[in-house]
Amino acid sequence: MERIPILKLGDALLVTIQVDMHDQLASALEEDLTAKIVAVRARGVLIDISALEIVDSFIGRMLDNIAAVSRILDADTVVVGMRPAVAITLVELGLSLNGVKTALDVERGMAMIRRHAYLNPDDDDHDGE
Amino acid sequence: MERIPILKLGDALLVTIQVDMHDQLASALEEDLTAKIVAVRARGVLIDISALEIVDSFIGRMLDNIAAVSRILDADTVVVGMRPAVAITLVELGLSLNGVKTALDVERGMAMIRRHAYLNPDDDDHDGE
Repeated sequence: MERIPILKLGDALLVTIQVDMHDQLASALEEDLTAKIVAVRARGVLIDISALEIVDSFIGRMLDNIAAVSRILDADTVVVGMRPAVAITLVELGLSLNGVKTALDVERGMAMIRRHAYLNPDDDDHDGE
Repeated sequence: MERIPILKLGDALLVTIQVDMHDQLASALEEDLTAKIVAVRARGVLIDISALEIVDSFIGRMLDNIAAVSRILDADTVVVGMRPAVAITLVELGLSLNGVKTALDVERGMAMIRRHAYLNPDDDDHDGE
């Protein structure tokens, strides 16, 4: 099975969604992301959806899931590159992506993640503070 | 027709190859990349092929083409994330990707592009020097 590549960029991980997501691919992506957040101690996850012409409730739920799991691991999730038509559809569907931050492009998303990491520095020694 | 998204990251453009490339998709990517290099004045192109399990002569030629066009536009092309098995296959096929630079991951590729941009600063005013 194909897996979606996850690229490390500084403190963040970058995923570009290009193919139709189905159940298996989505859950593989969630697993891979979770593992990689922990492995590289990522502070944020950028998900580029500029290739998607349609975002349905399945994708919406997947983004929500990723954001929820990332948050528990102290990583911000930022969805970037959303097309205007997709934003309109999401609102019409009542999917407001509450748990997910959005940015216009990867660079703004990276800036959001850097700001988050700066305001919430690592507590590397786990001394309970 | 689907198009492969091109992400801007500082001075560089990032493309993640995830789907099977066919003629039309490859030429659309070459066109889009060329246009975007000029539009954003990019100094480099990063092509992530970590999702590819096989690189055949068609992909090899596409990478060569992109590198050749980018070079004319003064942008470096760096292929990142190549799997070990792919590297072996390329050598066995006699495709050594001569015109293409390679790096292990996106971060090293970005560093190569930054170095290139630093050593070859823009001549913005086109005063013939």
